[in-house]
Amino acid sequence: MRDPIRVLVLGTGNMGSGIARLVLEKPGLELVGVYGRSNWRGVSDAGEAIGLDRKLGLPLSTDLDAVIAEARPEVGIQATCSTLEEGIDELAALVSNGVNVISIAEEMAYPMAHHPDIEAELEERAVAAGVSVLGTGVNPGFVLDYLVLVLSGVCSDIRSISVTRVNDLSPYGPTVLVSEGIGLTPEEFEEGRESGMVVGHRGFDESIAMIADALGWEIDSIEETLDPIVAEVRREALLVTVEPGEIAGCAQEAVAYRDGEPVITLFHAQEVCPEVEGRETADAIEIDGTPPVSLYGSPEIAGGAATISLAVNAIPQVLNAPPGLYCMADLPVSPAMLADARGFLADANDD
Amino acid sequence: MRDPIRVLVLGTGNMGSGIARLVLEKPGLELVGVYGRSNWRGVSDAGEAIGLDRKLGLPLSTDLDAVIAEARPEVGIQATCSTLEEGIDELAALVSNGVNVISIAEEMAYPMAHHPDIEAELEERAVAAGVSVLGTGVNPGFVLDYLVLVLSGVCSDIRSISVTRVNDLSPYGPTVLVSEGIGLTPEEFEEGRESGMVVGHRGFDESIAMIADALGWEIDSIEETLDPIVAEVRREALLVTVEPGEIAGCAQEAVAYRDGEPVITLFHAQEVCPEVEGRETADAIEIDGTPPVSLYGSPEIAGGAATISLAVNAIPQVLNAPPGLYCMADLPVSPAMLADARGFLADANDD
Repeated sequence: MRDPIRVLVLGTGNMGSGIARLVLEKPGLELVGVYGRSNWRGVSDAGEAIGLDRKLGLPLSTDLDAVIAEARPEVGIQATCSTLEEGIDELAALVSNGVNVISIAEEMAYPMAHHPDIEAELEERAVAAGVSVLGTGVNPGFVLDYLVLVLSGVCSDIRSISVTRVNDLSPYGPTVLVSEGIGLTPEEFEEGRESGMVVGHRGFDESIAMIADALGWEIDSIEETLDPIVAEVRREALLVTVEPGEIAGCAQEAVAYRDGEPVITLFHAQEVCPEVEGRETADAIEIDGTPPVSLYGSPEIAGGAATISLAVNAIPQVLNAPPGLYCMADLPVSPAMLADARGFLADANDD
Repeated sequence: MRDPIRVLVLGTGNMGSGIARLVLEKPGLELVGVYGRSNWRGVSDAGEAIGLDRKLGLPLSTDLDAVIAEARPEVGIQATCSTLEEGIDELAALVSNGVNVISIAEEMAYPMAHHPDIEAELEERAVAAGVSVLGTGVNPGFVLDYLVLVLSGVCSDIRSISVTRVNDLSPYGPTVLVSEGIGLTPEEFEEGRESGMVVGHRGFDESIAMIADALGWEIDSIEETLDPIVAEVRREALLVTVEPGEIAGCAQEAVAYRDGEPVITLFHAQEVCPEVEGRETADAIEIDGTPPVSLYGSPEIAGGAATISLAVNAIPQVLNAPPGLYCMADLPVSPAMLADARGFLADANDD
């Protein structure tokens, strides 16, 4: 059998650390490097940076070019940012050095939505370098788009699609809590929304574009709303306590119109401890089509754990794909990888 | 834009007729031929054979080689049979004449399960002829296998998988009702099960093999049960009335074991008018994994309509794929095709 697949992880936040730890657990994968934009914890070993209580004998690198040259990864998993502007330099460094890429940056789930120019250039560079680049993640990348497309396959016609995802922010860290405005007063929330500090979920545009392009729908316009969820009773989460009258979360909706009719409605509410006020966390997909499709799951698919799995499970399909830039709908399914990763490679049986 | 995609439909039962009618409705597809194993209705035009109230100006052909030569299809959709033994001659005729194939024969969803020898030969022939062959359908092919694999992608580990599908046989025709033993006495059901007349659902082996192979699980053994559902109250369906004490359906279960533990449990109950006795039709997928996944939908995804859609929606991906034999997990998702079919071809933008 060939040597283990060499994986570099970019990012040491919750997602990057979780991805790196999962790479360590999976037979057939080798964690050859961990890159962080900064070493703010001042750690000497990557093991500490990703939350292990042991050293890995790998430095935490803050020099991407150097770690690529040193570690010679076959695939780099990017978990450092949400937007393409923030992530493009890292993507370019990986691609130009012949490294395949899996990114969980929200905008990478469907780069065409916000950056058709960067999308075209990245595709061209990937093909030239002979590597594949995939954007994935739980949302965008799975629940509100890819899963919808999979289910749509049973339909001969579709009038409209509605997807709802309600999740609990209790386990999340400070970056997410701040971007959702948790603990603010309604006035502060309003100011944060205007200043761009409170943005809530990013990814509606990516999900809508992925769905519409795959179905062959032309969307005229998208209307988005972002509303505060104000606590009526005290809510105690891991890192924050929300008092009555303060912001417990964001309720967001995006409605895509086609020929003047609403055809795709995505609703996403994220709040700390929704159960305190009797709300269930859940995923719900409704396709008003022929035949109709209705699926519901509560609690919701756990976002952080799902994103970590999706990124790692995608490794074989990314290596199997011909060079190019891909979204989840472009590649064959990446199921849970429950055996040696090398066995999932297309050339696994060629030896 | 290129000429419409030329489609030949094999089969004039409920599925073949529905597929042919959908091909007629879809822009970018052209129904170039309809083949039936016999012309038992004695019709002169394919339009009558597929349940239209108008003529199509196409004969109903009972000579497959002749209709292939005459119609020059790019893809043939096979809806004539359930097993590979019954279907292999048609498949061979299509492939050897350079026609891509989509088959809804249950065993074609994953030919490796029962016929690894035929699978290997068919793959070889497809590659030699430069065509692609896909098995699909609602079950096997979607609810109890492909959809499970898609959902498994969010998991880093899986302990077990359980899928339940309960559907209503009321709208089905005589072939299905007989194979499910509907209206028999319990004694007749027992005899039918022993003689092979009552077989219930076919496809558990295909679904289990597709799931296990994609996850990298080795299955030691599969235990299957087939039990009668006896009516307690009178049930009136389209073609049959079931009296109390008679058979209203089949409840089937397959349990796949790995290292002595049950890891995949598929339950499928099919009966006429289950609502009469308070049972909901439904699909339910439970993955005991990290994270857990639980999705439920009631009523169930309508089987006949879903199979028809899946077969037609798969046309672009089958034409896009490199030559070979594929299951649903091998190709990118085939979403609902809601625009001109030619726009979904990989070379759509090359003109």
